Amino acid sequence: MFGFNKEKRVYLDWAAATPLLPEVKISMEPFLSGDFGNPSAIHKEAQIAKSAVENARAEVARAIQVRPEFVTFTSGGTEANNIAIIGAIEHLRESGRDYSEMEVVTTRIEHPSVHNTIKHLESLGVTVRYINVNSDGKIILSEFKSLLSEKTVLVSCSYANSEIGVVQPLHNIKKAMNTVEQKYSSKILFHVDAAQAPLWLNCQFDSTGADFLTLDAAKCCGPKGVGVLILSRRARVVSVGFGGGQENGLRPGTENVAGVVGAGVAIKIAQENWKERAELVKEVRDKGIDYILETIPTAILNGPEQDRIANNINISIPNMDTEFAAVVLDKNGFAVSTKSACSGAGGGESLVVKEISNDTARSSSTLRFTLGPETTLKQIKKLADILKQHEEKMENA
Amino acid sequence: MFGFNKEKRVYLDWAAATPLLPEVKISMEPFLSGDFGNPSAIHKEAQIAKSAVENARAEVARAIQVRPEFVTFTSGGTEANNIAIIGAIEHLRESGRDYSEMEVVTTRIEHPSVHNTIKHLESLGVTVRYINVNSDGKIILSEFKSLLSEKTVLVSCSYANSEIGVVQPLHNIKKAMNTVEQKYSSKILFHVDAAQAPLWLNCQFDSTGADFLTLDAAKCCGPKGVGVLILSRRARVVSVGFGGGQENGLRPGTENVAGVVGAGVAIKIAQENWKERAELVKEVRDKGIDYILETIPTAILNGPEQDRIANNINISIPNMDTEFAAVVLDKNGFAVSTKSACSGAGGGESLVVKEISNDTARSSSTLRFTLGPETTLKQIKKLADILKQHEEKMENA
Repeated sequence: MFGFNKEKRVYLDWAAATPLLPEVKISMEPFLSGDFGNPSAIHKEAQIAKSAVENARAEVARAIQVRPEFVTFTSGGTEANNIAIIGAIEHLRESGRDYSEMEVVTTRIEHPSVHNTIKHLESLGVTVRYINVNSDGKIILSEFKSLLSEKTVLVSCSYANSEIGVVQPLHNIKKAMNTVEQKYSSKILFHVDAAQAPLWLNCQFDSTGADFLTLDAAKCCGPKGVGVLILSRRARVVSVGFGGGQENGLRPGTENVAGVVGAGVAIKIAQENWKERAELVKEVRDKGIDYILETIPTAILNGPEQDRIANNINISIPNMDTEFAAVVLDKNGFAVSTKSACSGAGGGESLVVKEISNDTARSSSTLRFTLGPETTLKQIKKLADILKQHEEKMENA
Repeated sequence: MFGFNKEKRVYLDWAAATPLLPEVKISMEPFLSGDFGNPSAIHKEAQIAKSAVENARAEVARAIQVRPEFVTFTSGGTEANNIAIIGAIEHLRESGRDYSEMEVVTTRIEHPSVHNTIKHLESLGVTVRYINVNSDGKIILSEFKSLLSEKTVLVSCSYANSEIGVVQPLHNIKKAMNTVEQKYSSKILFHVDAAQAPLWLNCQFDSTGADFLTLDAAKCCGPKGVGVLILSRRARVVSVGFGGGQENGLRPGTENVAGVVGAGVAIKIAQENWKERAELVKEVRDKGIDYILETIPTAILNGPEQDRIANNINISIPNMDTEFAAVVLDKNGFAVSTKSACSGAGGGESLVVKEISNDTARSSSTLRFTLGPETTLKQIKKLADILKQHEEKMENA
């Protein structure tokens, strides 16, 4: 289907990057050749480009079930997260509210593009309250409610965690927020980073409860360098970048036409049959986890058994140098990772696993296998066997 | 060469968008199919992507003659301008200098991505001093010197103006800055927006005198959605976006691998033979201007005759509705614009021409023709003839 297994590679890093679907590539082709116009100009070439961008916007809107005017194309998930989080806070500040009068609630296991953006707000004087998560990484709802106050203006969490795959209870989080909003007659905006979601989870906007929803084409078989930010009717943001009026001024700069077109097709296809795709891969994944834990008794599963994004396996093998193990697996044809790519390839423990386990041996020995629709149980078994052999070799060294 | 003239269209909006060179497209292909890895991961797929990004960086570095570590890939020229301008000011502020203790010097004819970014700084309390330009749009050097003070921390101007094509005297601007720096033992950073330059002007870094140089792949036959920011050794910036550590933290988010690879090839080819390309098109352009001014006696050339980027023609035809004229030209096969695409397609006068002429009749009737390497004098003559007929038709209507 994707044609990238020519060297019998087994690619298990779908959370970091996904292959471009052939349909996506075909959709991009015209805009990488003859149809190169700038959508903001006046002539035929420009209008072709403009139509393509607006068609892509409509396609994403249909897939997520929002009106097209609530879809903003960005240069990636990171930028979408930045615009939502900083843009919302700066909008309030421009409306006259001091940073010191604002509280943001989030977890300690967010992706760096959320975590570091919120840290930046903290440096400006915004109070940040961190929700505790349980040993599976799940937000503890009872504690969450007590963190919300009259000053809370924004809650930010991921739909599915990029490292350990835990799917957060968005519905119940939103319910708790609603209760507090009613109590104080306040408005608490909800930012949901759904970058990992489109291939495996329902992203229909209303069902997420989000005021800001972040998507990333590169994580759902679309091109790198294109993200999407969906806004709710009541979401208000100011721009964090300055330039022309493209994307309603929210994301100035000439539109990446080919990329945007590809993103539209990728997100559409991802959401069309996420359920079937998820069910198939989940079966492989669950049996794979069982086989790994049987084969390597020292391995510990990170993240929950239920409420886990369909394609994620994350284990720790305490005392194993898993950076080295990932290299050994790579030489044996398996592309795997130890944690999120954005957390850096260069060593260091997983802050996510540290947070859920408070165990350095565990957080320093993570391996993440994120499966694709064509991953087989046989492949996962072979991986486990290689890992077992590697463990024995290291023990006897 | 570009294969986009299939319908006998004459594309004269190279300042807004350029066709993708076939060599560029070919270079991008592998990264839009099999080689889809995330450069930040650990495995073979990631390393292929990482190498590609670093090769592209080295290619740009060679073309501009800087060390690769001074080359940052961004999501476009607009983002590069934002990072340079805001990043430099925020770096000083984080070092303890108040906004009110900083002055930025620029012109009133900059691109919106520079103008609006500096307006944002003004809203934070930075003093902005505007250099007057003469009736050709050229910075008045004698006045410029008197604007520089002990508080000046940044000067920002374009290499070549995107609307009227005037090439600024970077060398003399830099010399004036040096004198003031010596007088006060201060450091004045120089930001040069060279987005329009690579195809037509020498972009060798030292020759520009810049501390920050902005390039945009989409303006030199590369892909949309990729810019470059070159930093000098003494340039200091903080990041304006937050996320992973990509591009030394200056531009977080998964790298747009295919785009970056294409940008490397485009900038390399653009700079390889800019001089020959510029000489050829300049001849067509100059004869074209003569023909237009002869044919349409009411037409006025905007911008200088000398020190003008090789491919730019910008005229006003006072009292003509040039938005409508552009549509008429479009129907006759000519893609032209009235002003910068980022200034919006939706009517309104040219702020650049307003600034140089202080004449609303002139600033409301601009037409910009930006030529490509294959534009012929015959095409420009035909355009002028159509425009003449249109003028007569309107007069007799």
